[in-house]
Amino acid sequence: MSRRRQVYEGKAKVLYEGPEPGTLIQYFKDDATAFNNQKKGVITGKGVLNNRISEYLMIKLGEVGIPTHFIRRVNMREQLIKEVEIIPIEVVVRNVAAGSIAQRFKLEEGTPLPRSIVEYYYKSDELGDPMVTEEHITAFGWATYQEIDEILNLALRINDFLSGLFTGIGLRLIDFKVEFGRLWEDEDMRIVLADEISPDNCRLWDARTNEKLDKDRFRRDLGNVQEAYAEIARRLGILPEAGPRDLKGPETMQ
Amino acid sequence: MSRRRQVYEGKAKVLYEGPEPGTLIQYFKDDATAFNNQKKGVITGKGVLNNRISEYLMIKLGEVGIPTHFIRRVNMREQLIKEVEIIPIEVVVRNVAAGSIAQRFKLEEGTPLPRSIVEYYYKSDELGDPMVTEEHITAFGWATYQEIDEILNLALRINDFLSGLFTGIGLRLIDFKVEFGRLWEDEDMRIVLADEISPDNCRLWDARTNEKLDKDRFRRDLGNVQEAYAEIARRLGILPEAGPRDLKGPETMQ
Ligand SMILES: Nc1ncnc2c1ncn2[C@@H]1O[C@H](COP(=O)(O)OP(=O)(O)OP(=O)(O)O)[C@@H](O)[C@H]1O
Ligand SMILES: Nc1ncnc2c1ncn2[C@@H]1O[C@H](COP(=O)(O)OP(=O)(O)OP(=O)(O)O)[C@@H](O)[C@H]1O
Ligand SMILES: [Mg+2]
Ligand SMILES: [Mg+2]
Repeated sequence: MSRRRQVYEGKAKVLYEGPEPGTLIQYFKDDATAFNNQKKGVITGKGVLNNRISEYLMIKLGEVGIPTHFIRRVNMREQLIKEVEIIPIEVVVRNVAAGSIAQRFKLEEGTPLPRSIVEYYYKSDELGDPMVTEEHITAFGWATYQEIDEILNLALRINDFLSGLFTGIGLRLIDFKVEFGRLWEDEDMRIVLADEISPDNCRLWDARTNEKLDKDRFRRDLGNVQEAYAEIARRLGILPEAGPRDLKGPETMQ
Repeated sequence: MSRRRQVYEGKAKVLYEGPEPGTLIQYFKDDATAFNNQKKGVITGKGVLNNRISEYLMIKLGEVGIPTHFIRRVNMREQLIKEVEIIPIEVVVRNVAAGSIAQRFKLEEGTPLPRSIVEYYYKSDELGDPMVTEEHITAFGWATYQEIDEILNLALRINDFLSGLFTGIGLRLIDFKVEFGRLWEDEDMRIVLADEISPDNCRLWDARTNEKLDKDRFRRDLGNVQEAYAEIARRLGILPEAGPRDLKGPETMQ
């Protein structure tokens, strides 16, 4: 494969130019960060697992009519995606109090919320991803009311589908973060699910034991981080043929 | 237990007065009918399995905020439910063409629909459960526009959640039928999910082989009907402790 132009390097992924105009290659790294970059580490095999998990979830969401950027996985660490204009809002859906909402309202972690709550955070590492309302989003022009409406609907549908999916494999979907983007096709614009869905941005607890099987194991130094990600993939029935020893995968990017 | 008053005997279930006002006991029979009662039979153990399956699905739907009539299972064949005023509409949600819609539009069974399609049928054995539109429903006073709106929203949420749940256990939710009712609490009225959700009113195909694991096995004389229902329960992780031999359960109703 010829040398590819790198478009962006983030904390967990690298974006390269794709083979066709309007496409990108999303490369999943093993790097992990938390608390707005203050904590850094490596979770060996995470990239391979998240590539698979996100592939699986995006395909399944696509099958129930949620439009996504996903085209196909190309190898252990890379997937082909449609390039979109990312809406600079992290959309968080919460079913059970955990993380920042538990702190903010002094709720005990694990308390079911009265109903699913959707929060918006402005994507800005510099500003520490502050929580924002529709007022800020529309006033600063990050998205229109109509786009917010569509994003909210999609986020709730994703929550329902993923809650069901994880229930089916003995997991509780506590909360998750997603990103959306604008996909232009000729004159038409559609909002599609972008980025990734993986244990990096979902809280997933074992339904029986409430054991955390997500990035909180890294954030809180709970150990067995790779094992937790692999357990999610295993329950989804998509553990790569390779055993955990092989999860390191090729580190070199062409 | 003292003798209970029978409120209604249907084709698949019997309703008895419950222990408290506003409650009913729903007894699940092994009787099966198809093609508007023209075909009749018995599926040994079906009542026990459907009681369990419907319990499980109603609880899980309740946990994501879908209001239901379900209170608790009381024994192998009976569950305690809230009495509601049934809205006389069968709400059918279809993801893939099968059954009557495949015939109606000459679609090959198994063709994915362009998007999920919700259909309404007027509950009337006498009339053969004819398909109706919002026009008929509102004109004949079976439900208001506002109620239809709420029913449509709930039906789509149920579809998303159940599609996810069944995906997680290697099944495809092809279509299903649900019923809703009005639940009065003082002056307030809420629409809640009623009746049952089971392989009697869902089409469920194995995701890998497309094998039918639902009532179509009975309708089309495919054999292994009880085994199919038991397989659904097994994948949901709720096969009653008793083995399949014991599924017959107590036939006598007090
Ligand atoms: N389909 C897409 N088209 C364009 N950009 C995308 C697409 N999907 C995801 N992205 C962007 O690619 C980047 C992925 O990299 P990564 O997740 O490592 O970023 P990050 O370090 O978390 O930074 P950020 O705070 O921007 O997410 C993100 O900025 C994300 O918004
Ligand atoms: N919570 C409830 N309160 C009152 N009636 C209910 C409730 N849940 C279900 N029902 C009704 O109980 C009956 C269940 O019996 P069954 O499913 O055997 O009926 P059926 O023979 O299929 O006839 P139908 O065509 O009316 O469904 C149905 O008429 C259903 O509408
Ligand atoms: Mg990111
Ligand atoms: Mg019925």
